[in-house]
Amino acid sequence: MKIALVQLNYHIGNFEKNAALILSEIDNALRDNADLVVFSELSVCGYYPHDMLERKEFIEKANETVEYIASKCTNIAVILGAPTINPTKRGKKLYNSAVFIQHGKVEQLVHKTLLPTYDIFDEYRHFEPNRHFEVIHFKGKKLALTLCEDLWDNQPAINSFAHNKLYMSSPLEELKKQNPDIVINIAASPFSYNQENNRKHIMEQNARDYALPIVYVNQVGAQTEIVFDGGSMVIDSNGELVHELAYFEEDYRIIDIENPGPKVIQPRQASIEKIYHALVLGMKDYFVKMGFKTATLGLSGGIDSAVVLVLAVHALGTENVRVLLMPSKYSSDHSIADAEALAKNLGIEYDTVGIQTVVDEFETLLKPLFGSLPANVAEENIQARARGILLMAISNKFGNILLNTTNKSECAVGYGTLYGDMNGGLSLLGDVYKTDVFKLARFINTEKEIIPENTIVKPPSAELRPDQKDSDSLPDYDLLDKILYQYIEMNQSIAEIVSQGFDKFEVERTVKMVNMNEYKRFQSPPIIRISSKAFGFGRKMPLVARY
Amino acid sequence: MKIALVQLNYHIGNFEKNAALILSEIDNALRDNADLVVFSELSVCGYYPHDMLERKEFIEKANETVEYIASKCTNIAVILGAPTINPTKRGKKLYNSAVFIQHGKVEQLVHKTLLPTYDIFDEYRHFEPNRHFEVIHFKGKKLALTLCEDLWDNQPAINSFAHNKLYMSSPLEELKKQNPDIVINIAASPFSYNQENNRKHIMEQNARDYALPIVYVNQVGAQTEIVFDGGSMVIDSNGELVHELAYFEEDYRIIDIENPGPKVIQPRQASIEKIYHALVLGMKDYFVKMGFKTATLGLSGGIDSAVVLVLAVHALGTENVRVLLMPSKYSSDHSIADAEALAKNLGIEYDTVGIQTVVDEFETLLKPLFGSLPANVAEENIQARARGILLMAISNKFGNILLNTTNKSECAVGYGTLYGDMNGGLSLLGDVYKTDVFKLARFINTEKEIIPENTIVKPPSAELRPDQKDSDSLPDYDLLDKILYQYIEMNQSIAEIVSQGFDKFEVERTVKMVNMNEYKRFQSPPIIRISSKAFGFGRKMPLVARY
Repeated sequence: MKIALVQLNYHIGNFEKNAALILSEIDNALRDNADLVVFSELSVCGYYPHDMLERKEFIEKANETVEYIASKCTNIAVILGAPTINPTKRGKKLYNSAVFIQHGKVEQLVHKTLLPTYDIFDEYRHFEPNRHFEVIHFKGKKLALTLCEDLWDNQPAINSFAHNKLYMSSPLEELKKQNPDIVINIAASPFSYNQENNRKHIMEQNARDYALPIVYVNQVGAQTEIVFDGGSMVIDSNGELVHELAYFEEDYRIIDIENPGPKVIQPRQASIEKIYHALVLGMKDYFVKMGFKTATLGLSGGIDSAVVLVLAVHALGTENVRVLLMPSKYSSDHSIADAEALAKNLGIEYDTVGIQTVVDEFETLLKPLFGSLPANVAEENIQARARGILLMAISNKFGNILLNTTNKSECAVGYGTLYGDMNGGLSLLGDVYKTDVFKLARFINTEKEIIPENTIVKPPSAELRPDQKDSDSLPDYDLLDKILYQYIEMNQSIAEIVSQGFDKFEVERTVKMVNMNEYKRFQSPPIIRISSKAFGFGRKMPLVARY
Repeated sequence: MKIALVQLNYHIGNFEKNAALILSEIDNALRDNADLVVFSELSVCGYYPHDMLERKEFIEKANETVEYIASKCTNIAVILGAPTINPTKRGKKLYNSAVFIQHGKVEQLVHKTLLPTYDIFDEYRHFEPNRHFEVIHFKGKKLALTLCEDLWDNQPAINSFAHNKLYMSSPLEELKKQNPDIVINIAASPFSYNQENNRKHIMEQNARDYALPIVYVNQVGAQTEIVFDGGSMVIDSNGELVHELAYFEEDYRIIDIENPGPKVIQPRQASIEKIYHALVLGMKDYFVKMGFKTATLGLSGGIDSAVVLVLAVHALGTENVRVLLMPSKYSSDHSIADAEALAKNLGIEYDTVGIQTVVDEFETLLKPLFGSLPANVAEENIQARARGILLMAISNKFGNILLNTTNKSECAVGYGTLYGDMNGGLSLLGDVYKTDVFKLARFINTEKEIIPENTIVKPPSAELRPDQKDSDSLPDYDLLDKILYQYIEMNQSIAEIVSQGFDKFEVERTVKMVNMNEYKRFQSPPIIRISSKAFGFGRKMPLVARY
């Protein structure tokens, strides 16, 4: 049986575009004499449409699109993903379904059983779980058709104190009773830098446990915060990876499942390289799918804006990025020189607009109210916010989307100015710790110095007061990031982190800063997710609470 | 059997405070010879703790608090709400439980069966549903103990196309088999202006259907966006409301369930009055629970800032609110006069800081970049953002929290400046349509003119260019708000709204504006929810999507 694995980049709610993509690949599969073409989860509408699923016209369009595609499939079988209506009188109105198409019509629906509802996943909000199991009979074979999480019944519950299985049932255990020949899993499995390994491990484990080959089709492309990395695959019944599709791009492969031929897998990439590609794809798809073309950002001479600029040039092209240098009286000579050197290395034109006159004018206006009160964060923030106004003026005048350059360490401890440097349409580094921003800079400079060495080696500073250093207010980033990782990704308590050998004072002040700054993150731009726990809708903390 | 209904204002995660409140009311109930004291859902930790529930130390503290309270209950029975650990090896690690305490210890746990996961509710994210039903035997009676949504099995699914029941099972149907004498429901049912009636209707229907009395205990108080309005009640077995506790404040009542005595219910309030009280409570609790005392806002002479100022004075006190008038060259004389008149009516001191010099300086700085391009939204936004900087400077210097004044109509169509007038720690009117803001102003002026009549009757204007009126860019608010209500609250499609008789052009441009501005709302401050569908985490739309 020849199965075509099709890994595509869908656009949420863009049924016409998704249908055209799907039909074009069905044509390819027909040409290649495939018996069956497999697309990913919710391929008809894109994953994840969130509350668009509550709109009747959205579901009707999804249904019409499925019918339209089915009508074209008279000589080939197709599996695709779509929301379908629960015809019974009870439960949520929708299922998250795999649609089996043959003979020009929808022949069978398989609904998703395990509905991930944790971290960035929200499926029980919209879908009723499946309770009925049936294999698909196709050309003398029995297909155990499953959807993404259905094969993840063996993952532990995510709570930090939990060591039990997250789900009450195992779809494959049920389907196994009907003696299937092949497992097919249509997925929408998002990238994080360790997810590729988890995913392969889960699939290999399933193949071994059930002694069945698995055909796994993921989507690729970014949907705002979430990047899907692709990596569709075939695992043989010994649990060995025998075919693997590309990462971070669309791909297509046709495989004879009884005779999958020699292994064709992808070269392994280091974490930092994967993160780099995820961020580029995240930015590119945000612009393409929103219909934007050009971006702007402020270049400070620091490492965060330097890395974001390189990502932007890669994702959007040199000619589509406009940068602004906005020195104040606290800006050091090297900041300006480093920013200019970077712009020159990249062949980017830049404008320089000093903020001092406007900052002075704000201070003059406020003098009657502030009197002789000592300068504090109020004056520092005026500088960051004046820069924010200039960048947004460029954005409004020329239609350039402002890129946010805040990194995860800053975002965590609130070391950034709301309505100032926290502005932007998209945050590129909001899930990248400062220590990883340095690694990205080194990765970018692998072949030649693009980011000036001085930008990488000088001590980080916001330059909002004389001789300010980040380390005046924060633990060193090496230490800070380790503590943050334990608190945020590992969900450890203060006591648990201290028991690992970290300094109690540093842990306590770090955790306190994280908790106190939920209100700032509440108003953050969307953050491209590259870790297992990003700020944003995958980490929902109450604002008004005692921590 | 004497049952004490205790309606309290909990603070999420503040176990010490919640325990002290609970214990103090248990003392009152002991004094009043109650047999049983009933508190609301998740009373030990406050509703809703979101991902704090994933932290081990949070669950441990909840458990310790329950044990501590139980140890004090040697002479009385108590029902309270807490997250408890699922001891089995499968499923989510937690239950949302009602804890039955007697003889100084936890005697029985009843877990929530129906876990609301829609709109603002997210319970399946953290909890495993109950599958086992058992009444509580207490003093010769059988208590059917349920948690909030457990009695809402009869509500239809919320999708606009759905007419089936949202849940697969009915907890009370199961419990009925054991012949209970009384239904107890511990709830965390949030306010919206029509929820009070829905809630009573559901409870009355249940009482009639099962011919059982219902004791219903809700919490009161606000948790950031969500306001709980209280209104705990007793319904007799004929489905008649016989006791009703206060709205928008803590309350306590002891009732002999066999002989509930004469009816004691609350006076009915008009919707606009309820909305007013909900907003005041929402603001007050935000400040109290965050540990803030003082607020600031900009007074424009328009109706939105006028209403917010009145709410702030009511919630925080005259002495705790600081206002700023920030005229530009486009500000009309009446704007300043109206703002001053309002401040005087309220006895509020105000400062005036003109923004023109700083706006001119920004334009000078940008002149080399903008050249001779015509003025557009870029220049308008500079004005709004300069005001934002001044207000945030006051906030940063004096510790006053900036109140956001954007109304729901503006928020819907994106008629506001990101990082300008969309700034603030809390949005008071983000769920109040402009036409309801007018009603609030009239309500405020019921007894005497507090908000100047001219503020109410003049045509709304942002005053960011000469002779600008809101109606230049938007449909009249009367029409706009009706279309928005159909699209947002009623989830109707363009075709459905037009079929109701609305003008197609107006519907299309309105819906387009709503969809195009998801990115602005993404960065909005938290919005106090007063309707059945507020912007914020109860309405989650993808940013990158084709609408």
